[in-house]
Amino acid sequence: MAEAQYEVLGIGNAIVDVLARTDERFLLDERLAKGSMRLIDAAEAERIYGRLGPATESSGGSAANTIAGIASLGGRAAFIGKVADDQLGRIFAHDMTANGVAFRTPPLAGGAPTARCLILVTPDGERTMNTFLGAAQDLRPDDIDGALVGASAITFLEGYLWDPPLAKDAFRKAAAAAHAAGRKVALSLSDSFCVDRYRGEFLELICGKAVDIVLANAHELRSLYETSSLDAGLAALRADATLAAVTNSGEGSFVLSAAGIEAVPAKRVERVVDATGAGDLYAAGFLLGVARGWPLARAAALGSFAAAEVISHMGARPAERLETLARGDGYAV
Amino acid sequence: MAEAQYEVLGIGNAIVDVLARTDERFLLDERLAKGSMRLIDAAEAERIYGRLGPATESSGGSAANTIAGIASLGGRAAFIGKVADDQLGRIFAHDMTANGVAFRTPPLAGGAPTARCLILVTPDGERTMNTFLGAAQDLRPDDIDGALVGASAITFLEGYLWDPPLAKDAFRKAAAAAHAAGRKVALSLSDSFCVDRYRGEFLELICGKAVDIVLANAHELRSLYETSSLDAGLAALRADATLAAVTNSGEGSFVLSAAGIEAVPAKRVERVVDATGAGDLYAAGFLLGVARGWPLARAAALGSFAAAEVISHMGARPAERLETLARGDGYAV
Repeated sequence: MAEAQYEVLGIGNAIVDVLARTDERFLLDERLAKGSMRLIDAAEAERIYGRLGPATESSGGSAANTIAGIASLGGRAAFIGKVADDQLGRIFAHDMTANGVAFRTPPLAGGAPTARCLILVTPDGERTMNTFLGAAQDLRPDDIDGALVGASAITFLEGYLWDPPLAKDAFRKAAAAAHAAGRKVALSLSDSFCVDRYRGEFLELICGKAVDIVLANAHELRSLYETSSLDAGLAALRADATLAAVTNSGEGSFVLSAAGIEAVPAKRVERVVDATGAGDLYAAGFLLGVARGWPLARAAALGSFAAAEVISHMGARPAERLETLARGDGYAV
Repeated sequence: MAEAQYEVLGIGNAIVDVLARTDERFLLDERLAKGSMRLIDAAEAERIYGRLGPATESSGGSAANTIAGIASLGGRAAFIGKVADDQLGRIFAHDMTANGVAFRTPPLAGGAPTARCLILVTPDGERTMNTFLGAAQDLRPDDIDGALVGASAITFLEGYLWDPPLAKDAFRKAAAAAHAAGRKVALSLSDSFCVDRYRGEFLELICGKAVDIVLANAHELRSLYETSSLDAGLAALRADATLAAVTNSGEGSFVLSAAGIEAVPAKRVERVVDATGAGDLYAAGFLLGVARGWPLARAAALGSFAAAEVISHMGARPAERLETLARGDGYAV
């Protein structure tokens, strides 16, 4: 098999984040479940935005954040996702390519605007997300470049792709193309409510080996197996998946493989300013390490390092070049 | 005279900032004068943006930052400035009104896009600005609501308004309306290169008393009087202006009035993350204090407080509600 041109190709919703600080009251008034993601339509997006205080905008999207993180770590990365031909779409495209990511999905012309996610950051650093999918709704199988998939060591897909109507077909096409080329497929479970919406299909993908690597946090894992026990969830996922990494916020993470379950400590941070992107950046470090054939604990440690950087400031993407920061911290990337 | 409905009305270029970290090399390659602002056209904006790394977007504009700061301090504030009817224009308008600012200037339809400023932040925290004026070029006398000017204790204008072709006429109309209503007019000198472009006109405004309050930093002051001596500049400005405040970065500021020249210390910050907005936020505290009839040193101290907050993070606007922060710090606002 030829050496992969890209270490990781991400496929996901192309979203611009609108980040605003709010108090706990705002979540209660709006009846929002803290820490979760919910889908909203254009009218609801306008209404909530009108209630929000001053905000800042930055490129986001779960798999897109992971891919940006991989590029920031010095990895070779590509992305497929749908923006509109508008100002926010150009911002999203800029921030991917400026990072060194190959991003060539043609923008949607004349349809919905670029997706945005209204992210409410509470004083405890937790984030609660309200996503208007806009143009990201239009991702379809035609957007999947089979040659690009075949040229990538790992194709990484986000569970959120189950929300847009045709994206799951795009997902399946990509997974099949990856396996046909002898490459790996990774899936992030995205969000516990997302798992709740698509539990059966996600389990089928994992148990049917359409997916080789699973990324989840403890909430998503418990939702997947409808259990309150983290240990039971870990054991079940280890039995079902070839390889998995499960994060447990400040407690660290677990790597699940045929060799067993290995606990990896989290990297401590002084203060969690904004948890947005924590899981996405953990995935960046972990997947890059796996693509490079590192021992799994080393890959997980790089994931923890990348997550620690992103929760130390507002926004879901690294504020500085991770490759430089990591080397300064003694990580061999 | 009726009590003013607004404490400060700001008139300025309505701009969205695109903030990106760069190294010193980038400034050298592009032959940019660190710490300054230069005007660029649409093509140059595209070219530089293409060379920039990942960025974040947030509302900016010098007088607009000051007005947002005043609202954040709990002041009653209004703003006049021109955006386009596009996504960035809606972001700018949102961030003003979400702050409690009265902002009702109709957006420009079918013309240039909303102005943006590409801000390069070097590792020392300094910012170097490249402004594409876009729709802000279209601010004209018709946009000045005389009743709004008359209802505002202070009308604050930025020197950058000399750049768009018709904005200086808007400026003059606003200043005349303010004085006709028995109100005060304040002018920020904006930037040393801006002072160099319009030195004669700025001096005429100050000496002719079209302006009552002058805000400047030490570079702008030296440029205004073409002197290398800060003391000579301070003496000259005190002779020419009714009231002035001159900032000297980490060294503190000077308040110049008939009573003399008073030095006010700067508020120390742990690390200057991004100097963008320092002068604008100093003006916010100072003008609010003057509008409230405070002793001048107390107004300057509130200015230093607001400036210290904004240089402690990326972006030109407060990251938290300044009124709350100030009270927590013992300022009676």
